[in-house]
Amino acid sequence: VQIAILMFDGYTALDAIGPYDVLSRLPGAEVRWVAADPGIKSTEQAWPVKIVAEHSFADVPSPEILVVPGGFGVDQAAEDERVIEWLQKAHETSRWTTSVCTGSIILGAAGILQGKRAATHWLWRERLRDFGAEPTGERVVREGKIVTAAGVSSGIDMALQLIADEAGPELAQAVQLSIEYDPQPPFDAGSPEKAPPEIVEATRRAVGSRAAQRDASRAR
Amino acid sequence: VQIAILMFDGYTALDAIGPYDVLSRLPGAEVRWVAADPGIKSTEQAWPVKIVAEHSFADVPSPEILVVPGGFGVDQAAEDERVIEWLQKAHETSRWTTSVCTGSIILGAAGILQGKRAATHWLWRERLRDFGAEPTGERVVREGKIVTAAGVSSGIDMALQLIADEAGPELAQAVQLSIEYDPQPPFDAGSPEKAPPEIVEATRRAVGSRAAQRDASRAR
Repeated sequence: VQIAILMFDGYTALDAIGPYDVLSRLPGAEVRWVAADPGIKSTEQAWPVKIVAEHSFADVPSPEILVVPGGFGVDQAAEDERVIEWLQKAHETSRWTTSVCTGSIILGAAGILQGKRAATHWLWRERLRDFGAEPTGERVVREGKIVTAAGVSSGIDMALQLIADEAGPELAQAVQLSIEYDPQPPFDAGSPEKAPPEIVEATRRAVGSRAAQRDASRAR
Repeated sequence: VQIAILMFDGYTALDAIGPYDVLSRLPGAEVRWVAADPGIKSTEQAWPVKIVAEHSFADVPSPEILVVPGGFGVDQAAEDERVIEWLQKAHETSRWTTSVCTGSIILGAAGILQGKRAATHWLWRERLRDFGAEPTGERVVREGKIVTAAGVSSGIDMALQLIADEAGPELAQAVQLSIEYDPQPPFDAGSPEKAPPEIVEATRRAVGSRAAQRDASRAR
């Protein structure tokens, strides 16, 4: 099973690593870290984690599983014709085309979500309408072979479901046990429907101002 | 807040990235990827993710938060005197000394868990006794400033709790909401107490044979 993970500067680390650490446990998994310009890619943070993306698009024309992470870098990635062309082409032959968080913005820009229900980070849900998609508040949305997940950590849940589909529920449970995914978050604030309203508003403002800063620095 | 994440070949990606993606959202967070020999470090998988560890131990003598991930490479890392000396020294001045998964083996080898209750990956629990620690089946164990977490994904829960301790429960909830950590795993198999017994046994055999392969290849 060839798994391609799209890399670009400004990705979110956990969006990529959650699915990686789950899907790489599929028997016969071959993971390719792929970028328009291969090399070291940095997360969006001021103190980034740097991951080596060794492969060009030409190296990986037809992965079985396509994973597109999100992050503040998605708008820039979605403007890159090479990214869009590769996604459109790879999607024609993929078994699964997936995104985590705002990775759905890139899938949307490639026309892949037209007329589909889709998930994304809760703060970006309305953006999906720009691409003819119908946003939902679900954690993982499947539309045929297109699977979109909600914010950041949801890629773990998505990937476990993909293992069940690819290799059966026994292996998915074994992988869940291997990564001891028995979540016990100290709070119950993981979605805008569950978090206290003042936390939702504070987060909306904080993330919004970060996104605006990034747009401003790109415009300069 | 200076956060040092220990890197070595054979670490598990999510052990490091879970806490990274949470703790890097602390106000004033400065994350340092640290290794005995700085450079590119690869995960344990056949198809690894490669992370750049830019800093030497001399660069980062006294981080406030120390994060030690696990992985099949922990035994080799624990045999490196430079790793042990740095951990012992950094632990003297740290505010929090933490591990995820089998990272606790390295903390144990540094003498830091002597007489303490501690968590680790469920398959390695008994190993902790070699270091005078008392293994528990809890997901996150706090003993003063020493915080140990269970397998792989538990670093996310641990890091959210650390944010609450460092910056208050409001910020911890905002971070949980930012990474949309509202877990909905497709199965309830994330701990040996919850998974079906046959899944537990199959996982024990599979992981055991992988560990044995690694030991054999080191011995060669």
